[in-house]
Amino acid sequence: MDYQGILNVIEDKLKGEKLDGEVATYIPELAKVNPDKLGMHLTSVIGEEFHFGDSEERFSIQSISKVMSLALAFITEEEEKIWERVDVEPSGDPFNSLVQLEHERGIPRNPLINSGALVICDILVSHLKNPKQEYLDFVRKIAGNTTIDYNEKVAKSEKAEGYNNRAMINLIKGYGNIDNDVEEVLDFYFDTCSLSMSCRELAQTFVIFANQGKLLQNQKRVLSEVHTKRINAIMQTCGFYDEAGEFSFRVGLPGKSGVGGGIVAIYPNMYSVAVWSPKLNEKGNSTAGMRALELLTEITGSSIF
Amino acid sequence: MDYQGILNVIEDKLKGEKLDGEVATYIPELAKVNPDKLGMHLTSVIGEEFHFGDSEERFSIQSISKVMSLALAFITEEEEKIWERVDVEPSGDPFNSLVQLEHERGIPRNPLINSGALVICDILVSHLKNPKQEYLDFVRKIAGNTTIDYNEKVAKSEKAEGYNNRAMINLIKGYGNIDNDVEEVLDFYFDTCSLSMSCRELAQTFVIFANQGKLLQNQKRVLSEVHTKRINAIMQTCGFYDEAGEFSFRVGLPGKSGVGGGIVAIYPNMYSVAVWSPKLNEKGNSTAGMRALELLTEITGSSIF
Amino acid sequence: MDYQGILNVIEDKLKGEKLDGEVATYIPELAKVNPDKLGMHLTSVIGEEFHFGDSEERFSIQSISKVMSLALAFITEEEEKIWERVDVEPSGDPFNSLVQLEHERGIPRNPLINSGALVICDILVSHLKNPKQEYLDFVRKIAGNTTIDYNEKVAKSEKAEGYNNRAMINLIKGYGNIDNDVEEVLDFYFDTCSLSMSCRELAQTFVIFANQGKLLQNQKRVLSEVHTKRINAIMQTCGFYDEAGEFSFRVGLPGKSGVGGGIVAIYPNMYSVAVWSPKLNEKGNSTAGMRALELLTEITGSSIF
Amino acid sequence: MDYQGILNVIEDKLKGEKLDGEVATYIPELAKVNPDKLGMHLTSVIGEEFHFGDSEERFSIQSISKVMSLALAFITEEEEKIWERVDVEPSGDPFNSLVQLEHERGIPRNPLINSGALVICDILVSHLKNPKQEYLDFVRKIAGNTTIDYNEKVAKSEKAEGYNNRAMINLIKGYGNIDNDVEEVLDFYFDTCSLSMSCRELAQTFVIFANQGKLLQNQKRVLSEVHTKRINAIMQTCGFYDEAGEFSFRVGLPGKSGVGGGIVAIYPNMYSVAVWSPKLNEKGNSTAGMRALELLTEITGSSIF
Repeated sequence: MDYQGILNVIEDKLKGEKLDGEVATYIPELAKVNPDKLGMHLTSVIGEEFHFGDSEERFSIQSISKVMSLALAFITEEEEKIWERVDVEPSGDPFNSLVQLEHERGIPRNPLINSGALVICDILVSHLKNPKQEYLDFVRKIAGNTTIDYNEKVAKSEKAEGYNNRAMINLIKGYGNIDNDVEEVLDFYFDTCSLSMSCRELAQTFVIFANQGKLLQNQKRVLSEVHTKRINAIMQTCGFYDEAGEFSFRVGLPGKSGVGGGIVAIYPNMYSVAVWSPKLNEKGNSTAGMRALELLTEITGSSIF
Repeated sequence: MDYQGILNVIEDKLKGEKLDGEVATYIPELAKVNPDKLGMHLTSVIGEEFHFGDSEERFSIQSISKVMSLALAFITEEEEKIWERVDVEPSGDPFNSLVQLEHERGIPRNPLINSGALVICDILVSHLKNPKQEYLDFVRKIAGNTTIDYNEKVAKSEKAEGYNNRAMINLIKGYGNIDNDVEEVLDFYFDTCSLSMSCRELAQTFVIFANQGKLLQNQKRVLSEVHTKRINAIMQTCGFYDEAGEFSFRVGLPGKSGVGGGIVAIYPNMYSVAVWSPKLNEKGNSTAGMRALELLTEITGSSIF
Repeated sequence: MDYQGILNVIEDKLKGEKLDGEVATYIPELAKVNPDKLGMHLTSVIGEEFHFGDSEERFSIQSISKVMSLALAFITEEEEKIWERVDVEPSGDPFNSLVQLEHERGIPRNPLINSGALVICDILVSHLKNPKQEYLDFVRKIAGNTTIDYNEKVAKSEKAEGYNNRAMINLIKGYGNIDNDVEEVLDFYFDTCSLSMSCRELAQTFVIFANQGKLLQNQKRVLSEVHTKRINAIMQTCGFYDEAGEFSFRVGLPGKSGVGGGIVAIYPNMYSVAVWSPKLNEKGNSTAGMRALELLTEITGSSIF
Repeated sequence: MDYQGILNVIEDKLKGEKLDGEVATYIPELAKVNPDKLGMHLTSVIGEEFHFGDSEERFSIQSISKVMSLALAFITEEEEKIWERVDVEPSGDPFNSLVQLEHERGIPRNPLINSGALVICDILVSHLKNPKQEYLDFVRKIAGNTTIDYNEKVAKSEKAEGYNNRAMINLIKGYGNIDNDVEEVLDFYFDTCSLSMSCRELAQTFVIFANQGKLLQNQKRVLSEVHTKRINAIMQTCGFYDEAGEFSFRVGLPGKSGVGGGIVAIYPNMYSVAVWSPKLNEKGNSTAGMRALELLTEITGSSIF
């Protein structure tokens, strides 16, 4: 399939459409981003690369990091122990809601919302000697790219302001579902969110989920096939805050978004794709990113359904 | 693939496992069912048929009927008008919750929960001359089977007891999202739920969703490709009450369950499958049905992810 | 105390203040009322009468009727059986919320919100031969006034539109906390709400709660002292939808409001007072009525605290 | 009235009744208390003192301290500024619920629940040079007793474990309704809760609220009459977590309870009364304490209604 031609069509179409939204402003570092940035990169499972626009420029991946945290947890902890502490259901509520957490007594609805990612980070802190370094090494390994790094300014900014996440982790700790010191877990969590990556790097990282858990460069297995399918299933039902249904409905691929304006999606056995545009809709997902992926699956017919 | 051999393996495995649950008892007609019934039927898109157990015995399909209601609505009403009145997000709450409906001012979360199906039924009542007959004709047509019929006893029993659905539709009406008389819509809704079908009939009906919207017998299009994909996407995220994530995670196929103990699932472009066992888990889904489908995708590797 | 002088001061002050609000419009009969009506009547326990403005004009008492329903239930049913079916806690939610009812499985929070009053009406329907007539007779008796009557137009209007109350009673019935036919109970409930009374008549009716349960005209006991205190306590904590705290805080007397714009309050052992002004604040309580009573207790120092 | 005789009757009755409950165990210091402790002390506005049992033994007053915090806030900050940041409505939810706080965007329902008291503490931290000392001085002054003090062990224990309060204050801070450093406010809050007082000391402190805001010893005004009435009104509607209605209904006096097993209540212009028994009912209020006060108002007829 002529993916490059299709990406060019998408780029043209996006430019002709009015795709509004607001850049995330809750931390100063995110608010500074140029709202007109737009980039897209597609990596096929046979190693082809296609892209347009600002696809090489790094941005704050934010919640997209939760997928890698979960992947690392699958490698680090027995799976059944994970599911004793986190559920796999869509949240039906905005991404930062404490209501559901209180209602379900400290068991987060799924690992891709903040509360669930905090528990996953707690698991990693329990098992890893140096979580911050080992998480980064893990991402670099699956990305095949040793230059990927944290943005310390973003992490610091989040740590100073993160009242809601601090509320959340204390609530979970109160229910006994955090084993480590809350500030230590929180620090690690904010580090993971601060990862700075480009569309190219995100696509090249996530192609492992399209490739049944194997690295593209050498076909070495990092994740089991079952774990890979499960991560994809969770992205499908839980990857877009309370817009997971809308994304599934319009795009029809598993994926994950971040408030930095990035979205990655997977077409199993075919490709991974990342798009970046900082303007967010009211649900916190990139407006142009959603539209770009909708166009991609519309034109290519590549929905999983 | 040797589907019959695989179904035989599943049958054997189910018999060796302890799969508990409670038969739905909220209406007497459902409570009478033999809890040990177990049947499964798979229809491939090239017309092969595989089955075991009580796959020819009819049971009350209950909420599975909501998928056909939605399909008929797609044919009957402009799609955008449907989505002004119903959302497409997973509910994150038990199937009969009024909380979310009140919170979202009469807009049901999706068309596969009771409140959403009531609005879909209201749309059908507005557009069809004889909704009860035309709905039945529609199901018979896609099933290629003119013997399928309502169970009047079940419908009557529901009508006499359906306080929760009556509460729900009155609440929605209070928000202005029901156009017709509430009792008329409710009657039609209970009729659709009372459809009596076997696993074979369900699989043969749902194969249209695996066949991109075309009838298997003559490849005539009934639903557009886009509508078919959307129905599958909605089944994926919303088809199992507050266990949609679990089903997606364990089975990895779009599907829909009913409190009569039936579950149908779709593997796009490959097959549809129906399973029936009346014992329900605490979320209201058939325990053995969930397990059977998990085994099927495990053995065949046929998850969409 | 010179109550007439004080009422005159209140009247003057109210005229000088900007007391906005919206007339209830959810039924046509209420929407027709002249929004500028204003009346007040105070009846002391020694039988003095003071008033100003439209204090003799009848209006729809609406939820104020719930107090008389509770009083009649105390006479009709054993008290402990009442409290098995209704709680006595403030609701913390708007008056028509189904959320709490669902959360507490059909047990209304208190008898002065719609759901609780519906259960009280169900109790009365179970025990009285002709609830509609006996309820009216009871009100006439404690009012010492045989001309008080229902407004059939208001009742009919409510019955035609009352989707929310119909939702509520069906929900409660689903939980098994309504014994009689829902439409029969609903009809009786709407009848009680449709009572048409003037400020004078309301004050003369409610003075029984200031008089420890005895009729003023002949000091004959109708309610026990304990029941009277309890009704007053419930009015204090639950009489103003989700503004009970505000009323307690600003006025400091037990009372009850209705969406017709009426409010009655009690100063135990001293007086009852009724005020009417149809413009409601956003919580559904009469703006001028709240202010009039605040002035009354401010000037007289008659808060119970 | 022969209050001593009545207290003796209450003591006898309590001994004959089975009044179960659980001692609060969420901090070790509270869990150590002898569950069979029972004391009661009544101080009349003319300075009489009556008591029985362990009325001179100090215990952890916990949430009772919230009333003194509010009183001190009335002296320290303009009243209208307080009510911009805290509401005065009963909560309708357990005392530590984050749900309502999230729903109302960081405005606590009232100053006598934890979230509201945290905001009140924030106000005090903003206005006082040495909040911990000045709060203690204030309590000592209205108690007329310079030996009252904090229990540092209790405070330390709370600070180490207080995940839920830490969650709460971070959530409120996220909504912008905490001006100071969360840990500083939290420390002060835990200090106030750790006050150790006997029934005698509590009754002698709270008699100011029965005495219209004036000290008993010299009739000097500390609180305005209006503020005193308002504090009483808030205790009436909000003083008992989600059992305020029950207390109002059964006892009919404004009051406040703490999880240390203490309850104080006020009969305006007549007396204050404190009771202590560590065994709590499921709502977190002292079982024997509730019963003792019910008996007191039953026997004396001293309900405010």
